[in-house]
Amino acid sequence: MGSINDIGMKAKKASRKLALLSTLEKNNILQKAADILEKNAGYIIEQNKIDIKNAEDAGMKTTLIDRLSLNESRIKGMAQGMRDVAKLDDPVGSVDSMWKRPNGLQIGQKRVPLGVIGIIYEARPNVTSDAASLCIKSGNSVILRGGKEAINSNKAVVKMIKEALRESGIDENSVQLVEDTSRESANEMMRLDKYIDVLIPRGGAGLIQAVKKNSTVPVIETGVGNCHIYVDKDADLDMACDIVINAKCSRPSVCNAAESLLIHKDIADKFVPMICSKLRDNNVEIRGCSKVQSLFNDVVPADEEDWGKEYLDYIMSVKVIDSIEEAIDHIDKYSTNHSEAIVTNNYNNAQKFLNEVDSAAVYVNASTRFTDGGEMGFGAEIGISTQKLHARGPMGLKQLTTIKYIVYGDGQIRK
Amino acid sequence: MGSINDIGMKAKKASRKLALLSTLEKNNILQKAADILEKNAGYIIEQNKIDIKNAEDAGMKTTLIDRLSLNESRIKGMAQGMRDVAKLDDPVGSVDSMWKRPNGLQIGQKRVPLGVIGIIYEARPNVTSDAASLCIKSGNSVILRGGKEAINSNKAVVKMIKEALRESGIDENSVQLVEDTSRESANEMMRLDKYIDVLIPRGGAGLIQAVKKNSTVPVIETGVGNCHIYVDKDADLDMACDIVINAKCSRPSVCNAAESLLIHKDIADKFVPMICSKLRDNNVEIRGCSKVQSLFNDVVPADEEDWGKEYLDYIMSVKVIDSIEEAIDHIDKYSTNHSEAIVTNNYNNAQKFLNEVDSAAVYVNASTRFTDGGEMGFGAEIGISTQKLHARGPMGLKQLTTIKYIVYGDGQIRK
Repeated sequence: MGSINDIGMKAKKASRKLALLSTLEKNNILQKAADILEKNAGYIIEQNKIDIKNAEDAGMKTTLIDRLSLNESRIKGMAQGMRDVAKLDDPVGSVDSMWKRPNGLQIGQKRVPLGVIGIIYEARPNVTSDAASLCIKSGNSVILRGGKEAINSNKAVVKMIKEALRESGIDENSVQLVEDTSRESANEMMRLDKYIDVLIPRGGAGLIQAVKKNSTVPVIETGVGNCHIYVDKDADLDMACDIVINAKCSRPSVCNAAESLLIHKDIADKFVPMICSKLRDNNVEIRGCSKVQSLFNDVVPADEEDWGKEYLDYIMSVKVIDSIEEAIDHIDKYSTNHSEAIVTNNYNNAQKFLNEVDSAAVYVNASTRFTDGGEMGFGAEIGISTQKLHARGPMGLKQLTTIKYIVYGDGQIRK
Repeated sequence: MGSINDIGMKAKKASRKLALLSTLEKNNILQKAADILEKNAGYIIEQNKIDIKNAEDAGMKTTLIDRLSLNESRIKGMAQGMRDVAKLDDPVGSVDSMWKRPNGLQIGQKRVPLGVIGIIYEARPNVTSDAASLCIKSGNSVILRGGKEAINSNKAVVKMIKEALRESGIDENSVQLVEDTSRESANEMMRLDKYIDVLIPRGGAGLIQAVKKNSTVPVIETGVGNCHIYVDKDADLDMACDIVINAKCSRPSVCNAAESLLIHKDIADKFVPMICSKLRDNNVEIRGCSKVQSLFNDVVPADEEDWGKEYLDYIMSVKVIDSIEEAIDHIDKYSTNHSEAIVTNNYNNAQKFLNEVDSAAVYVNASTRFTDGGEMGFGAEIGISTQKLHARGPMGLKQLTTIKYIVYGDGQIRK
């Protein structure tokens, strides 16, 4: 294992060959890697046990230890994930459009891999196989830099993928793991713009901010979601309850879970007690404005900080507002621009909300939980972008590509 | 004029309204601004004279003073540029595609403005009106930070555009000029990720590197072009001469001009003297490898640095190579991945070059000078991206937009 610079150089070199593979060749690598992963489940679980032991010794919370743990069925799941990616359409090589200029030049916009993708992530070992398969399928080399908590598991998984690459006659540096999990190795990656084309941090807000601040490599910000649901005065209140409960409670720890509920004043007297009692039935702590406090018992007073907070927990901030304009302004001020929903049967308000809320995904009468590559129909995702440049929302295979202009001439010169 | 932070806040606020304007409203602003610009040509020229006087006092080169100078006809040109942008198709609001999921959700990908665009540029005052019109048409607020050499001219131009905005009842903070031209004001802009969605530096390599290094705002790198022409063994040599001379000499100071010429060894004996004498007739200094030196008189020996250099001048590096593979490797090593061309009549080599050269624009049998928004058919451009993320090659109106997912439901929740 060489220095980060070496890893970058090798990744860049491997990416040139990888970019030229046929879809069939890439699919074969993924099928083979899935088989090898399953066949070596015993070894991977053994290595994973070292990580679990270290985590227990370090006093890691049981919920986090659960995320870190691998067993036969989870490894089967990882392998199935690789086979699923093999089944997806290959975006590379398609010419999105081609046109002819008056001077006869034919110009086409061809989809090509980005080159080298760096991923800095935290403790979940399944990210290792997911990210590697998406990068291989889209023709990109990948440099994986997982957290130290999962290092032995990650090494075992990458070992299997490298074996599949070797058996397929492909440069094994197409997938590399940074085994040095110190902060310096992450910082070095952030300065490797010579070799890395894009860096995708996956993890908490702290990690993402650090990468954004220090990276000279272009970054795609992912995943921080302070998602809002606005229940309009013309809402179907039963539907609103179903949507709020689903968005808040079906999986509170993920970025597309709702964190904040805005309720129009005209329906507050009826809807606040209705939704608050359901939230409480689901063990959700309610942090409310003064109006909410007056309409329901034992509401924790919300302070300024609550409106901007991504709880990732069984907590929801609730506010009564005067108008749809106030709802949109509130979202504009506090949202991380991930996903927001309006519940309404009013046509104008639905259109206004869709037009004016500036988030990656804006919903009418549906749960924010659908902001997800699989749910939106992309098959898989490498993360959910909350920035506007390059990719916005769930990033599938296409978002791991760029274009180049191919120009066919017959001697044209510029006058 | 407030601080940079104030400017950012105002730009963000203005961008919300600007994003919702109809195409007609945006076109009217541009038409009005063009009229006001022409009507006030006298005032603008007067202000420009202050810049010219200061530049002369500071001993600026005459070629640079020429680029800085405005007269009646150049102002007419700027106004015409604004009217041309008004005629372009508006990308905002189009839904690129819409699909239905098995659960009935209808998901559309809608094109929306980026929000706030920051542009840091050097001495040419026409960039001020060009950039402002492209941003207005694409529904984005813009913060312009031009060089101190053109500050009086830029202030005069922006004054006219603001008048057009005011007369149209649009927030005049949609277009703002940073009047403080110190290095600190540029650095502050680079840290304004709270308000600025993308920063586009336009200027020399030094400026672009500084922005890339210091910016927490996503950056689009533009314009550095060490462009190559490879003359294959199966080339039509007369066509090759025309293309090389056009790419090198028609405008050596621009980024799509060719800087380096690679020649296959099998045609070197004939082609090296042929092209070198034509280059010399055009006052181009030739920096050659030893083979080129042996085939033509008075060639300056090229050193390692020459291969990586963007001369932007009447200088060209020339190298004889053994194969198309060596040409592709050489380009991979030294190119800035802007534009490269092959001249050949060999089908396989043409396809190989198109597939394997990883640049924004790759040409067969045409001059690299066509990498330009106007020439490629985009109508206008705000710069030429040499990075892979978000935009690659000439950036027209569409590249100043992003997408958002709009989702129409009827009560869907995630199982």
